[in-house]
Amino acid sequence: MLDDKQPQLTSLDKLGEFGLIDHLTNSIEIQNDTTEKGIGDDAAVLNLGELETVVTTDMLVEGVHFNLAYVPLKHLGYKSVMVNLSDVYAMNAVPSQILVSIAVSSRFPVEALEELYEGIKIACKNYKVDLVGGDTTSSTSGLIISITAIGTAKKQEIVYRDGANENDLLVVSGDLGGAYLGLQVLERENEVFKVNPNVQPDLAQYDYLVGRQLKPEARKDIVQLLKDLEVKPTSMIDISDGLSSEILHLSKQSGYGFKIYEEKIPLDPSVIKTAEEFSINPVTCALNGGEDYELLFTISQEDYPKIKGNPNLTVIGHTTEQNAENYLMLQGSESAVPLSAQGWNSFEGE
Amino acid sequence: MLDDKQPQLTSLDKLGEFGLIDHLTNSIEIQNDTTEKGIGDDAAVLNLGELETVVTTDMLVEGVHFNLAYVPLKHLGYKSVMVNLSDVYAMNAVPSQILVSIAVSSRFPVEALEELYEGIKIACKNYKVDLVGGDTTSSTSGLIISITAIGTAKKQEIVYRDGANENDLLVVSGDLGGAYLGLQVLERENEVFKVNPNVQPDLAQYDYLVGRQLKPEARKDIVQLLKDLEVKPTSMIDISDGLSSEILHLSKQSGYGFKIYEEKIPLDPSVIKTAEEFSINPVTCALNGGEDYELLFTISQEDYPKIKGNPNLTVIGHTTEQNAENYLMLQGSESAVPLSAQGWNSFEGE
Repeated sequence: MLDDKQPQLTSLDKLGEFGLIDHLTNSIEIQNDTTEKGIGDDAAVLNLGELETVVTTDMLVEGVHFNLAYVPLKHLGYKSVMVNLSDVYAMNAVPSQILVSIAVSSRFPVEALEELYEGIKIACKNYKVDLVGGDTTSSTSGLIISITAIGTAKKQEIVYRDGANENDLLVVSGDLGGAYLGLQVLERENEVFKVNPNVQPDLAQYDYLVGRQLKPEARKDIVQLLKDLEVKPTSMIDISDGLSSEILHLSKQSGYGFKIYEEKIPLDPSVIKTAEEFSINPVTCALNGGEDYELLFTISQEDYPKIKGNPNLTVIGHTTEQNAENYLMLQGSESAVPLSAQGWNSFEGE
Repeated sequence: MLDDKQPQLTSLDKLGEFGLIDHLTNSIEIQNDTTEKGIGDDAAVLNLGELETVVTTDMLVEGVHFNLAYVPLKHLGYKSVMVNLSDVYAMNAVPSQILVSIAVSSRFPVEALEELYEGIKIACKNYKVDLVGGDTTSSTSGLIISITAIGTAKKQEIVYRDGANENDLLVVSGDLGGAYLGLQVLERENEVFKVNPNVQPDLAQYDYLVGRQLKPEARKDIVQLLKDLEVKPTSMIDISDGLSSEILHLSKQSGYGFKIYEEKIPLDPSVIKTAEEFSINPVTCALNGGEDYELLFTISQEDYPKIKGNPNLTVIGHTTEQNAENYLMLQGSESAVPLSAQGWNSFEGE
């Protein structure tokens, strides 16, 4: 059963992460009145009291999600918390507690875990979240971090992935593509270091990008900003896998197609410059890079005046019709490229 | 930092699991009113509504907590849920939701994960718990399962680890030592199989023990029984690491010493018989074996008539005085052996 050599068995790659989750969980029936929303959004929603409770969990694996050759443990601790808080904010909720489970091989000294926890504690302090539990265990290889975040919101404030309506505007916070390019810079410096350990890397010009990769911030401020502006998004998701993949989620769950405009995608000047250096299209970094942890949401057109001109928010497109495809409209042309989650290669080929 | 060869760094083994958790989390200050109880019990307690919310998480690692050579994936899925629900019951609460995160290497086919989820889903059904979220990701080696369980209880019903009083009775549900011996049987058969794969193991006489190891049940029924009997324990914990270790937790947190009596420790006849076969003291299996997932709790002496004679519950000892040591009173003698969490060797030496 465990060996993948028998031809009748299905390889995990075949389904992909989202396909696999769907496949494994689509038969689940909810049994408790307190379960408002189960699998399929940024977080589950539970009805445990006056406020609704949202809860989400994420696992980070050494060698898959991070490389300790260039990721300081303190940053890793901080980022692990951000990844989870970002999911809570994507529900338009406020995180209040986290639980942290860690599996670690004995090659790590206590001091290494102290650094990791230092980052976790700083994140908790900055975001006013309590670390209330967890588990620490041995691993046979490497470091695995699993964090669960809990938050609350009033029932009427919670924003799901499925609420977009026809001709809603699609809005993104901050700018995109930076975290992906930061990773490229770190990986390149690591290769240089392996060849010649005496070379001191000069990363000053990549500060912004490396910061986006190593120390992302969950957009607590955007959730507050939307409250202040009295804008309730019709749907929302955080950008962990790349703009393209997240739009497909919003589209699939609402049933509406999306159209986004290449020239509207917010890119930091250093993203454009560094993408050029790496001979990548910066828009590709935004679409497929991921890990930017910005918020992507739809709003009703009548809310446009409230967000217009806000430097933190950019309208990048809009929903179209029910069951329509999702398109990127190319700059300076009438051409449209279909968005796809595995779109890296197909898009590069255009 | 990561390499443990520098002599000034502290090896993880030096602190042990509980020492490590204490060390990493003792400086944490609670920032939210909704955090009733943070780290240090079977579960955290949150004040999110009319009912209190309890939340707990546990991680199981291939090669550390289970060996897929003799643990069927369906049983593993079931047990992973039990481990977490047991912590919720140990708070005298009722579990309602779980989140499941899995890291898995590509050597596992989809069918293997289907089996694992089959066990998870059966557990959810049997215990009326909803699977509401999780994360599925790649691992560089092996299978890692991290589960978070959420439950609720009325504030006045929640039972902590620290509530024991002077001369309370110490009560345990079911019987002990079976899960540990089941593991010994499975490991022995696996060795035999490696030498001669054609030998069909006859495990019939070990059914009970192997069942205790592979398919433990969280003691939902005991929580209900205590409600029916109108007994509220003064403190409670579940037995995951062995009776000895759990008593030390109750003692440390309440400040009282405990005395338990060797002849009172409930042992199934097959535990006694199989321990003899393996030349182990069956009491040692109960004290240090772990994974029995029974509930261990203290009650006030006035509640004794309510539980007296109940076949599910055994009084095995009592609390003594503040700051007293914890002792096992040996059968048929006046000798007392101090209980210790790493007590396996020291006790065997008696």
